[in-house]
Order: sequence, then structure tokens, then C-alpha cells
Amino acid sequence: MRLVMKFGGTSVGSADAIRRVTEIVGGYARDHEVVVVVSAMNAPDLRTTDTLIAAAKAAAAGDGNATAQVTPRLLDLHMRVANELVTPEERAALEPEIRAMLDYMSDLSRSIAVLGELTPRALDLFSGLGERINARLIAAALRSAGIDAEAIDATELIVTDDRYGNASPIEPDTRERSRARLLPLLAAKRVPVVTGFIGATRAGVPTTLGRGGSDYTCAILGADLDADEVWFWKEVDGVLSANPKVVPEARTLPRLSYAEMGEMAYYGANVLHPKTVQPLVHRRIPIRIRNTFNPSHPGTLIDAEGDGESVRAITAIKGLSLITVGGPGMLGLTGVAARIFGAVARAGANVLLISQASSEQSVCFAVPGDEAAKVVNELRCELDREFAAHDVEHIGTIAPVVIVAVVGSGMRGTPGIAGRVFGALGAAGVNVIAIAQGSTENNISLVVSEADADKAVRAVHGAFVTTNGGNE
Amino acid sequence: MRLVMKFGGTSVGSADAIRRVTEIVGGYARDHEVVVVVSAMNAPDLRTTDTLIAAAKAAAAGDGNATAQVTPRLLDLHMRVANELVTPEERAALEPEIRAMLDYMSDLSRSIAVLGELTPRALDLFSGLGERINARLIAAALRSAGIDAEAIDATELIVTDDRYGNASPIEPDTRERSRARLLPLLAAKRVPVVTGFIGATRAGVPTTLGRGGSDYTCAILGADLDADEVWFWKEVDGVLSANPKVVPEARTLPRLSYAEMGEMAYYGANVLHPKTVQPLVHRRIPIRIRNTFNPSHPGTLIDAEGDGESVRAITAIKGLSLITVGGPGMLGLTGVAARIFGAVARAGANVLLISQASSEQSVCFAVPGDEAAKVVNELRCELDREFAAHDVEHIGTIAPVVIVAVVGSGMRGTPGIAGRVFGALGAAGVNVIAIAQGSTENNISLVVSEADADKAVRAVHGAFVTTNGGNE
Amino acid sequence: MRLVMKFGGTSVGSADAIRRVTEIVGGYARDHEVVVVVSAMNAPDLRTTDTLIAAAKAAAAGDGNATAQVTPRLLDLHMRVANELVTPEERAALEPEIRAMLDYMSDLSRSIAVLGELTPRALDLFSGLGERINARLIAAALRSAGIDAEAIDATELIVTDDRYGNASPIEPDTRERSRARLLPLLAAKRVPVVTGFIGATRAGVPTTLGRGGSDYTCAILGADLDADEVWFWKEVDGVLSANPKVVPEARTLPRLSYAEMGEMAYYGANVLHPKTVQPLVHRRIPIRIRNTFNPSHPGTLIDAEGDGESVRAITAIKGLSLITVGGPGMLGLTGVAARIFGAVARAGANVLLISQASSEQSVCFAVPGDEAAKVVNELRCELDREFAAHDVEHIGTIAPVVIVAVVGSGMRGTPGIAGRVFGALGAAGVNVIAIAQGSTENNISLVVSEADADKAVRAVHGAFVTTNGGNE
Amino acid sequence: MRLVMKFGGTSVGSADAIRRVTEIVGGYARDHEVVVVVSAMNAPDLRTTDTLIAAAKAAAAGDGNATAQVTPRLLDLHMRVANELVTPEERAALEPEIRAMLDYMSDLSRSIAVLGELTPRALDLFSGLGERINARLIAAALRSAGIDAEAIDATELIVTDDRYGNASPIEPDTRERSRARLLPLLAAKRVPVVTGFIGATRAGVPTTLGRGGSDYTCAILGADLDADEVWFWKEVDGVLSANPKVVPEARTLPRLSYAEMGEMAYYGANVLHPKTVQPLVHRRIPIRIRNTFNPSHPGTLIDAEGDGESVRAITAIKGLSLITVGGPGMLGLTGVAARIFGAVARAGANVLLISQASSEQSVCFAVPGDEAAKVVNELRCELDREFAAHDVEHIGTIAPVVIVAVVGSGMRGTPGIAGRVFGALGAAGVNVIAIAQGSTENNISLVVSEADADKAVRAVHGAFVTTNGGNE
Repeated sequence: MRLVMKFGGTSVGSADAIRRVTEIVGGYARDHEVVVVVSAMNAPDLRTTDTLIAAAKAAAAGDGNATAQVTPRLLDLHMRVANELVTPEERAALEPEIRAMLDYMSDLSRSIAVLGELTPRALDLFSGLGERINARLIAAALRSAGIDAEAIDATELIVTDDRYGNASPIEPDTRERSRARLLPLLAAKRVPVVTGFIGATRAGVPTTLGRGGSDYTCAILGADLDADEVWFWKEVDGVLSANPKVVPEARTLPRLSYAEMGEMAYYGANVLHPKTVQPLVHRRIPIRIRNTFNPSHPGTLIDAEGDGESVRAITAIKGLSLITVGGPGMLGLTGVAARIFGAVARAGANVLLISQASSEQSVCFAVPGDEAAKVVNELRCELDREFAAHDVEHIGTIAPVVIVAVVGSGMRGTPGIAGRVFGALGAAGVNVIAIAQGSTENNISLVVSEADADKAVRAVHGAFVTTNGGNE
Repeated sequence: MRLVMKFGGTSVGSADAIRRVTEIVGGYARDHEVVVVVSAMNAPDLRTTDTLIAAAKAAAAGDGNATAQVTPRLLDLHMRVANELVTPEERAALEPEIRAMLDYMSDLSRSIAVLGELTPRALDLFSGLGERINARLIAAALRSAGIDAEAIDATELIVTDDRYGNASPIEPDTRERSRARLLPLLAAKRVPVVTGFIGATRAGVPTTLGRGGSDYTCAILGADLDADEVWFWKEVDGVLSANPKVVPEARTLPRLSYAEMGEMAYYGANVLHPKTVQPLVHRRIPIRIRNTFNPSHPGTLIDAEGDGESVRAITAIKGLSLITVGGPGMLGLTGVAARIFGAVARAGANVLLISQASSEQSVCFAVPGDEAAKVVNELRCELDREFAAHDVEHIGTIAPVVIVAVVGSGMRGTPGIAGRVFGALGAAGVNVIAIAQGSTENNISLVVSEADADKAVRAVHGAFVTTNGGNE
Repeated sequence: MRLVMKFGGTSVGSADAIRRVTEIVGGYARDHEVVVVVSAMNAPDLRTTDTLIAAAKAAAAGDGNATAQVTPRLLDLHMRVANELVTPEERAALEPEIRAMLDYMSDLSRSIAVLGELTPRALDLFSGLGERINARLIAAALRSAGIDAEAIDATELIVTDDRYGNASPIEPDTRERSRARLLPLLAAKRVPVVTGFIGATRAGVPTTLGRGGSDYTCAILGADLDADEVWFWKEVDGVLSANPKVVPEARTLPRLSYAEMGEMAYYGANVLHPKTVQPLVHRRIPIRIRNTFNPSHPGTLIDAEGDGESVRAITAIKGLSLITVGGPGMLGLTGVAARIFGAVARAGANVLLISQASSEQSVCFAVPGDEAAKVVNELRCELDREFAAHDVEHIGTIAPVVIVAVVGSGMRGTPGIAGRVFGALGAAGVNVIAIAQGSTENNISLVVSEADADKAVRAVHGAFVTTNGGNE
Repeated sequence: MRLVMKFGGTSVGSADAIRRVTEIVGGYARDHEVVVVVSAMNAPDLRTTDTLIAAAKAAAAGDGNATAQVTPRLLDLHMRVANELVTPEERAALEPEIRAMLDYMSDLSRSIAVLGELTPRALDLFSGLGERINARLIAAALRSAGIDAEAIDATELIVTDDRYGNASPIEPDTRERSRARLLPLLAAKRVPVVTGFIGATRAGVPTTLGRGGSDYTCAILGADLDADEVWFWKEVDGVLSANPKVVPEARTLPRLSYAEMGEMAYYGANVLHPKTVQPLVHRRIPIRIRNTFNPSHPGTLIDAEGDGESVRAITAIKGLSLITVGGPGMLGLTGVAARIFGAVARAGANVLLISQASSEQSVCFAVPGDEAAKVVNELRCELDREFAAHDVEHIGTIAPVVIVAVVGSGMRGTPGIAGRVFGALGAAGVNVIAIAQGSTENNISLVVSEADADKAVRAVHGAFVTTNGGNE
């Protein structure tokens, strides 16, 4: 099996964590082809990338010695890990490499200080350093543990455009380069340890894919190498059925469909953004979310089918305002929806839910609470004439509200689910302000007042997930 | 009590019907101030206004004698009624008046034939003739029955702009003229019989308010005369809880709120369009729908409060397509809703329901089935680039679908209603494709396949209206 | 030789004039193929078309009898001519035809009065009547003088679009119909007498080419029949070298090029508008302007070559304002010309002359005096920011000014002409405010103050035309 | 008298030249307040600013040692001058200052090489170094010659916006700072030697006013210090009446008006761009152009009045194309000028002359020859429909052509000048293709073929300037 697996910041944040990584990788590398993607090291007291960016900004503000304090701490952070996990021979080779990279950083920061400005291009030179150091450290740790490994800069693999700070990969160049560089290593049973987050333009200038981009690096390589599975090692056992702070009995879901995962994108940090893993979804490559600190747990498997359970999870998006535009003249007024959402777009607000029932006399939609005032203002301007003609008579706001989303691809085509959802809510005395369920979505979204939110989440969770032991 | 009451086409469509009108008016005129608004006569075999318009079109096509066949039939239609209901003296005065109006029509049609074109202005001269004749006939019938009545052309009362064929009333002019002309009559216990449908510009050129405009005439006069109630006499006892062809046990609703009536605007001919009665809603004047042919029935009262029942009626809008636009890149794509509905507007389609649940990965909306192909086409053009970038991945259509709307202003704030609705649907095995419930709407709208539509209507009706005898 | 000739309003404005027409036509018809195009009759006290339009407007204002006074006068006008020029037999046939046309007019006007509006389509039915009557009268007069002639309505020949009141001919339809209808007559030595000014849509609805359209009719038929020459019979011997009121010694020019004629379009009524005769210019068909009342004079011949004289005529356009926009920042300001003339266009003003010399620091242009204030206002708005930045520093107006245009296609390529022009102006003490001479124009245009205008015209005329007897 | 005087690149390009500068400044400083503005040193074999920019670009391309070859040459260039003109003591102070500046340059270039990019901001740090070195050198030379002088960086005086590479001064800040810093020096009889070309943002970041900006620096300081006169020391005696290569007898003009100078902006390097000296024109401060190498010559005085001569100079702009757009439908076509020049602007072309004579049938304009094809292309697109309708029939190009401009503010209001101009051209057999003379311009512009250009210049020069000895 060909596995591409990524270890995030905390999973590579200490000697102990990295030892687990070597054990995990070592275990799988015996029988499988394994590619490892690593983030920069996030120790509890030293977040590498944040530290690098802060130093670059200090340099731009004129501090010619901006890195003086930082370099010894970064060197120390990584060498302390090396001292625990890396053989003396490897260490002897590693230390000067890390020092050279930190010297380069100092050089960069001095140059930025001389010129007095920090361009996005210069920042990208800086902000990928943590990944480069860490890939070398982890490769050395793997080798020290007897696993044949090689650190590789993704600048060799991932070709991007030149939007520094937010670059996009270019295909088929990336696929060609990745396969040419990595497949021979895999054939030779060697484990490539690839830097996340960074790439390079065709001209070779380093770029970054944006923060959080290590997941994206892993998905790109997984797709371009035609991996059998792609694993994201995190600090949790997998995706949960609800926020455990609200629902103590929330469970880890064994399996989800891509579509269900998409529905849960707002749920929290442990869910992958659907855009990030799009390369994998396109090639139907199964994804797993696993726990570095509990590697025996099978985690959550995410693939095209899921397991067909009806309701899988209940999420809540807080801090919203529900805006309603209505009036007798809206009935049959062609183009009014376009004008309303045009006004919303001018206000720069994201629309999180829309509901217009059949009477066409009003439309309501949810936006982040702090954008509501601007949206209402734009709507008043846009609909000025309709107000004067009494075609539109009210633009109202209900806030704070929460969207409670009930997710599950098995809901479609299963009569009675909505009845159970609303039955549970009714029994709990929750007043539902608005409802939206789209035709292809694996999702019923309810708008409730913030005061009712937790009660609503618990009620639906109780009706489906908790009681329904057979979910697993 | 000051009552403004309108009798529609079938209610004034025969000698028998008009006799009922005289009885009804006579009954109320004894103790109340009554203003009567009348449509043109719609006999089963001779629809007056349609006949007039057809003659005008024939004239424009060159038929100089377009009215030759029509005038004797129209004269006969009205004089036959007069023979039954009008005294010989009145008849002697009425006949030359009708003849003069029909001669004028012949004159108009000859002129149109000479010039070879039919302008909207000329058509308005034509198409209000039926109301003018009928107002005179009914006034004569009332007088013959001993009720002091006077026919009045609304061109004297309702001042409009000059958008011929689709004119709008101008206030405060209309209010001033209506009160100056009608209040003295009411004070003298005389019943004004006013032509529906027509008005005149400030310069005195006749206009029409558009077809179905008699209801609007009645609402304008009701508001401008500060009526205590405004009654629309129709051929049914009132507003029904469902289509009786689908739900045999459908009941007449005794009372509705304005808002509930608005929700039911699509339901059928017996419901008043909310825009038409807007002048009455503004002044909070109660409306009654009553049955000319069953005048002892109290009908349906429509006012600001309604009676607070939760679910009142279940309606269905058939022949729709549900269009879904989705893809992973839609999440957080500001302005995409505006662009989608802009494309829909360019396609000229009305949007009858929108639902975008919280995942923001897709939005679905319903449009009339015959407009779906054009909408999809416009969407493909609009989202071309997003398709290429895989941000949008599918634009799908489900058809034929039906929107089932569950209406009732008491639904808001009553936990458990949605649960009962969806519970009933689940029990009936109805698969709900999409759901929308807006925040201020007294309405939950469900999209179901056309095959499920009647079953869905019956299921919800059964759960609320039928079983819930206490509704009344 | 195939000749198409048009007789304008005054040339067919009396029995005496029409007798001359019959003599002229008779003279040429003996040896040539002749097509005659006629306007409506313009008698000194009765301008036919104006009278018809006035009657139509009176009808629209409600005068049902608008034509009562007009029809006997028009009948009398035409029959008095007939009495002098037409044989009793022809007259017996002509009179009922004219009466029928006048009856139709009365019918139209009654219909317009009944409907109370005058549409462009209805006006076109009206306003071509004068041509139709006159073509029949003149054809009868020609036959009475022994010339085989036939009146033909141009509605049979000229196919137009349906922009009533301002229709454009459609080719090749017009060419096909004209040749099919007229060539057999010419082959049979018969003279077609065609109505000017009117055409008909493909559906046969009469249209007009706009007032002054008889010249256009003549040019269309001349081109479509491949005439050898096209003659416009007027009340003057030909085109003059200057306005004789200003320059008593102004002379009739024997020959002009099309281009020179184009340059003189502003000169006055006796010059043909270049757009009107475009069909003839395209096919390089020679044009003659001749005098109905002095038929022995050869008139002015207008063709592709002209006679190569350098200066041909001096014209003056009065009542103008010269507007100058300038400032140091205009040098090298790309797009400023577009913005200036964009502002002029928004002000709705025609630009009669532009001059921007090489320093690019200012541009000046002439507009009609009554449009200057609006133009300056638009310019101030458009250039607001440039004013603030001192890039533009002044927008000035000089008024009243006159453009004196010195016309002659021989000027190009003849060194010394400009020297003589400006030498003559200098000698006369005329201060030249601005100068423009375009590269392909047969024209030097000078801007002078209104006080200097006549002096300038006389000075240049004296230097070239008067002294240069060899011009003729 | 308060004098602000600027010495350009060649005037400060060698020890010999700078000795002359010290003599000139010394001579005037005795009796006047003198402010000196200096450019970077332009030695025949080492153009300082160009050299600096080349080094910066080499650094950005990765050459970490880009300045290694340049610094010794620049040090040598300046110190060789110092060896001749500066006392040993001054030299001892000067050399380390220059070295420090060159070290800073090396530092900058290394930083640019490290970061691999050259931003406009970084370039501005670089490109003003030559002025900073030179101001110090010249101040030292002045002091060595016994004149109390002080080098001042204009970054202390001229406050600009932050458009690096093309910054604009901000008032009144610049006025305040300049007066506060310089007036005390002048009061103390000390000569400030100010760097041209550079300024600084409010935050103190160095900027440049763009190349050639030293003239602008001088004009800004002249205006802000309320100078009595502002002198520009160049390598010629003053402004010439024509290009001496074409007209050997061309003379230096003793006096010009600001307006005349503006007309001659295209004439060549020795004329000041009107935008550059705008601050002086605004305050009506007289300008002198003088010859560093012939300081006894009075030069050319430029002020508001000039000396009123009619024709002052004849200039020629070569390498142009004359484009003509014409057709019969352009007559009266509102907005066509705006559309034509809109198309020209889209093609990015500057319009150097426009002429549209009164017939409105065509407009012609001159553009640089290498832009003509693109302009014609844009015009064809813009006027596509008019071509199809034969309203526009030709878009022609005549090339190569030359604009000959006859400049002189006395031409306006002097009848006969144009006559003499065109008389001379006619006598010389020059064919004038187009003419433009704007109303406020002190300029007649003629378009002639390139073959005729020199002949035309000589003919007009001969007729006015040469023969007219009284010009002086």
C-alpha cells in the first residue's frame, strides 16, 4: 500500500512526539511505501513559524539584529530533540545544516533591515524555514531509528504560481516532478520526509501555500503519487459527532463520506477543509484522520461512500445574525434575489444560510453577526425605491442566532428523519426560527436563538447518535 | 357600518346572479352605507371583456366591421337581464344608453381598422366598456328593486398615470375625488355602483388597471373611503384549507390573518393577491370573502390578527424544477449567491423557493419547470470559470417537483409543529427533497417529487386540520 | 441617356411651374429615358405637406372635422392647375381620384380624432398624400401635353424598415422592385412620375423617408436604375461661389467634385446633403443642379473629378462659439482628447471644427453658440481633478465667432494657395483666431470674429474667384 | 537678489566644469543670496546615476558583489575632482564621507542580492546617491574656493508622497521645511548646495522625483523661497530659433514668454518642460537659461511677457503619421469625435495635432509613427458599424510626416503673419498637408511630408527670423 501521511505542528512538537512519529512511520514503512509530510515544530513555548514571521517584521521595522535572540532558541529547540532521538553521527551532520539555515535567516533579516521593507516574496523566504529544519531533523531521527529516510524540500516538487504568501500549485508540472523525485525513493524502500507548506515558482523562487498549507501539500502529493490512502495525524482520535463540551457523550465517527466531511467544514479545527483535500476527493483516494498519541485507534475513515448512517453529527455555528427582507411587492418581482445578494456581496459578507419559502414574500439569510449592520445598510440603499413604493416593507435582523446543522448523507431518501429531528426539538421546547435543507446537501440547517443552541444540539444528538448505538 | 363590496364576473353573469346581487345589496343597504364595485358581465357563453378585446384586434387586422356580430349579442345579453330585472321605464332609459356605448365601440373599431394599428391607449378605450354597461344595468336593477342607486364611471374617481393597460392610481388625487363624489351619495342613502377595472389620467384619458383589476378598484375605494369592512363576493364560501380535489375533507377557514392570506397567494383564484389588497392591509381594514350564491354563510374574515391557529392550510405549487448549484469552492466564495441569482434574473425566471444550508457548499432553488433549461444555461455561462477551477462542480435539476407549503401564523413560536409536520410526512413515506422556512414567514415549504405531492398534502392536512376539529 | 430627375416643391408649385416641367420633361423624353420624381405641391399660399400634418395634429387634439376646411382648398389647388394643363378627359378621371384621396384623408383624420392620438405610423399615412396627388396630376399634365406618362406610388418601389417618420430603404429589395416596375415602362418610352418622400414596409405599410426625402428618393432610383445622370431641378442656376448677399459678384460654379459639394453642405438650401446623394456618389453617377425657371442654363455639374480649380467657393457658418481647453499638464496626457470630446458629446453638441496644434498644451473647437454653456459645464465636471492638479488651467470661450471655409479640391497639392488666402486676409486686416485644414479635405477653415466674417469672405472671394476670371 | 540656480549633469561633470561652477557661484554669491541645486556627476565615461541603477539591477539578478567594480570607479571619479579643487583638510573630511556612502551602496546591493528582488522603494535608496556625493563634493570645492557653502540633502527639504520612482512634492510642508532650513543660511551669507532629484516621505523614506527631476527640485525651491530669478545652467547659450543643424543661421533668443517656451517643449533637451517649471510660472518668477561654459552670455530670459516678437522659433517634430477618418455620415454624427479619440487612447497613442475643418466630413490627427498601425486598428474596431453603414468610408494614413510649428506669442492679433508664413512656404514649393492653429496657442502647426520638412523650416525661418534682424 502506498501511504502519504502528514504530521501537524503538535505531532512534531517535542522529542516525545517525534519519537512517536518515528515509531508510527517505522511500523508502516516495513510493509508499505510511506511518504511523510511535516510541518514546522510547534513546541508549547516556541511556535516556529510565528516566531520567524515576527522576526521578519521586526527586521522590516529596522531591527538589524532581529534574529539575534531567536536563532539560539530555534537551534536549541531542534538540537534538544536531536540529542534525544538522533545518533551522534547524524547529529554532527545535522547541526551545521541547521546552523546554515539559521545563518541564512539572519542574513535575510539583516537585508530586510537595510532595505526597510518586507515584501510578500521576502516573507516567503522566511516563513518556510521551520519546515526545512524539521524535515531534516525528522529524517535524521528516522535514520537513527534504523529507517532509511531522506529530507526533501518541497521546492523541488511543488511548482506554483508567483502569488507569494498564497501560491497555487501548477499541474502537470507538480505531478511530473513529484513522481520523478519520489517514486525512485519509494522503490528503494526509502521514506521521503517532505516539507509541508512550501513550493517554488518555475524560476525556483520559494513560495508558500498559505498557513495551514501542510495539509494541502499532503493532499497534492497523495493525489500526484496515486496513494492508496492519505492519513492526517492529529491530536484526536478522529471526527466527533458533536462538540464534546456541549455533548459529553459525543463519539468519534468511524467513517464519513467526503460529502459529510464537507458539511462539517465549519465544525472545527479537526476537520479538513473541503478545498484543501479536493485533489484527493477528485481521485477518490480514501482519507484517514488518526491520532499520533493514540495510534492504535483506527481513527475516522473518509471516503466516497461513508457508511450510510442517516444522522452523523450535529454542529453549531455561533455568532450569527439572521436578516429578513420582505414585503407584498416581492411576490413575482424578477431579479430581487439577485439584487439582495448583490447588496450582501457589496457589504463583503459571507452568506451562511438562505431560506425563501414558497410565498416569495420574504427571503431570510444568515451572516456573521459583526457584518449584519453593514449588510442591512447596503440593503436599504439597494431597495430604496421598493421601500418608497411599499413593495418592500421590512428589513429585519434577529441576533444573536446559531445555525444548528444536522449532518448525514443517509438523511436523503430516508423518510422520517426530519420528523425525528423536529420531534426531538419540539420535545425539548426549542423554537426553530428558520429552516433550510438543500436538495443535494447531507444536511438540515436550523436557525435557533443563541440561548437555545446547546439545548438544540443536545436534543438532536440524543435522538440519533447517542441512543442509536448501532451507529458504530 | 360603511361597506365597500365587489361582485366579480360570474356573480354578475346572469339575471339570476344579478337578482341575488340586488337582494344582497338591498339587505345591507337598509342599515349600512354600501358602495358596490362591479366587473363586466361574464355569461357562460359570452365573456364581455374578452369579446371586446377580440373585436379590437380584428379591427386592427383590417376588419372594418369587426363589431358587427358582437354588438347585437352584447346588447341582447344585457337587455335580456334588463327584461327580467328592470322596470319598463328604467329599461326605456337604459337601452339607448347601452346602444350609444356599443355605437361608440363600433366607431372605435372602425377607426382602428382605418389606421390599421391597435395602441395600448386605444385598447383601454375598448376594454372598459363591459364595466360601464354593467354598472348602468345593475344600478337600474337596484332602482327597479326599490334601492336608490347610481351608476358611476371610475374614470371620475380613480386618477392614474398613463401606462395604458397597466395603470397605477395616483394619491392623494384619487382619495380626494372619490370622497368628494361618493360621500354625499352615501350620506343621502344612495348606493353608488362603480365600474371596476378602469380609471383615467389627469387629462381624462381612460386607462385600465390591468385584468383582474376590479379587486384593486374595490380595495382602493375601500381604503380611500375608510370603509369598516371590504367584501369580495365570489362563487365559494371562503378560503379553503386545501384543494378539495386533493383533500375531500378540506374546510372553509373562518378567519385568516393578512400574513396567512399572503402565504396562500399561489393557492388559486379564490385568494386575493397581496399586492391587490395592499391599500386595505395598510389601513388595517378587515376583508371578507363571501359567496354570492350562499349569502348566509359568513365566509372567511381576513384581518391583522387571524385566529392564531398554528397550521391553517396546505397548498401545493406544481410544475416546478429544483436547481442545485454546488461545489467545494463555493464555501466562503463571497458574492456567489448574487451571481447565481443574477443569472436566474437574466433568464427571466421567478424564484419560488431558495434553500442554502449552512455548509455553503451548494444552494438550491425552485423555478417554473419551463424556465429551468434557460436558467441552467445562464448559470453555466456565469460560472464558467468556477467550473474550470473545480470550485463549482455540478448544476443539477430535479423535476418535476412540487412545493408543498404549510401555512399558519401560529406556527412561529410553537415548538413541535415542525415535528408534527415532518412526522406526518415520514409516516406517509414522503421523501422531502428540500425544506425552507423563513424567519418571518408563516410557512414551512417542502419540495417533494410530483408523485409524492398529493400524498404530502393529505398527510399534513390530516395531521392538523382534519383531526384538529378545534380549529374552528 | 437614362435620366432620373426630381422637381422640388416650388418647381411644381403652380400651373406655370408645372407647364415648365412638362416642357422640360417633354424635351428630354424625346431622345432619352426619363424618370420623374415629384414632391408635393408647394403653392405660395398653401404648402401641401405642412397643411396635411397640421390637420392630423388638429384631429389628434379632438377636432373630428379637422380636414373640413383643408380638403376643398387642396382640391381647388390641384384642380385649378388641372384646368389649365390637363385635357377634359384626363380631368374627368383625375378629379375623382383626388377626391378619393382627400376622402381617405378625412377618414383618417376622423379615426385619429375618435382615438385621440397621432402615432408616427398614422402620421406617415397622412403626410405622403401630397406626393400621391401631385404625381397623378403631373402625369396627367404630361399626357395632356402628348407625353406618355404614368403616375407611380413609390410604395411600390421603395422597401423600407418600419421606423415610421424616418424610414431607411432596404436593398437589394428596392433595386429589384424598382427595376422590375420601371424598366419596362422606360423600354416602352413611357415616363414614370414617381412620388418622392414615401416608401412602404415589406408588409406594405406606408412610411416616409423624412422631410426633404424627395431628393433621397431621386438618388435611390437614380442609383438603382443605373441612371447616366441625375438632375435636381431647383429655383437657382446652380451652386454659387459665395453667398450673394455678402459677395454681390458671387458666380454660379459650372462644375464641382462630389468632395467639394460635401464641403459646402452647410452652405445653404441649394446644396445637396452628402448623405442624401450617397447612393449616386457610390456609383459615380454625375449629378446636375439645374434651374426649372431658366432651363437653358447648364447648371452645376457635380461628379467625381470636378474641374480641378483650386479655390471654388467661400462659405461662412455663423453663430458659433470657440471653446479652448488648455494647461501645462495636457502635454502628453494620454486620453485627454477622448475625454474632452466625450464631455462635448454628453452635452449633445456638434463639433464643427477642431484644432490642436503641436504643442499639445491646448485644444480648441467650435460648437453652435447656444450649446457652448452646456459644453463648458460638462468640461468643468469632466476635468475637475485636472483643474485641481493645475494640469488644466483654463476653459475659455470666444463668441460669437464664424467659421469661414475656403473650398476647392485643387487646393491640395497646390503650393501657395494658403499663402494667397492668408495674404488676402492679412491685407484686409482680418485677425484669424484659429485655423484647421484636414489632410483629405478640400477645405481650409478659419475662425474669425463675427465682426470680421463678411470682410473675410469678401477678401478671399476677391483674391480667387472674382479676379480669377479663368475659373469659368 | 535671491537666486536659485541649478547645474545639470555635464555642468558638474569634470573638475574643469566644477571649477567654472565655483567661479560662477562665487561671483554671484558676493552680492546675492544664492541657492545651488546639483545633479549627479556625469563624466563622459561614467554616468553616475545610470551606473548606480545598473548595479542595483545586477544585485537583484543575484550578483552579491554587484558594486565591487563600481565603487572604486565612483570613488576615483569624485576624488580626482577633489584632488584638483578641494583643500587637503576638506578632502580629509570628504573622502570618508564618500566612502561611507559607497559602503552603504554596497550594503544595499548585498541585501538586494540576498532577497533577490529590486522594489521601487529600494531603487530610490540607490538612485539618489550620486546627488548626495556630488553636493558634498561641490560644497567642499566652494569652501575650498573661499565661499561659505553647506551640502544639504533634499530629503530634509522636499516632502513627497510615497510613489517611489515618481514622487510628487507635498505643499505646504515642503515650503515650510525649505524656508526653515535654508533662509537662515542665506541670511548668514552661506550657500546651500542642495541635491536635485530626491525627496523623502513624511516618514523620512527617500524618494525620487523621477529622472530629469533636478530641474523640478530647482523650480520647487525657487518658488518656495520666493526667488527673484531661477537660473538653469546648461551647455548652450540659450534657446535657439531653430535647430542649427537644419538652419545654420539659427540664433539664440534673448527673451521668451512662458507660453512660447511651452510651445517649444518638443523642440529638444535645452528647453524646459512646462510641467517642470510650473511652480515658477505660477509665481511669475523669471527663468534664465544660461551657459556654464560661456557665463558672459546673458542667455535666454523666460518670463510672463516675453518681448512680443511675432514669430520666435520654428520647430519640427519628426517621425509622425497623419491619420484621417472620413465619410459622408460623419456630418452631424454627435459623439464621433469622442469615439475616435477614445479609440486613440485605447491604442495608448499621444495625439500631437488635430485638425477637423468645418465640413465635419473628416477629422485628421498626428500620432507617433510607430503607434499608427495600432491606432488604425482600434479605429476600425470602433467604427465597424459606421463602415458597414457607409457613414465612415475611409481611415487613411500619410507617413512619414513632420509637424512644423511656428512659435511666437506676437502672432495672435497680428494680421498678416499667417499670410507671410504660407507665402514663404508657397514660394519654397512646400505642400502643406494639414494646418492647425488653436485660439490661445502662440503657434501655427503645419503638417508636411518628411521630404519637405527641412525646406519648410528654412523657408519660414528665412522669412521671419533671419531677415528680421530687429528680432533682437
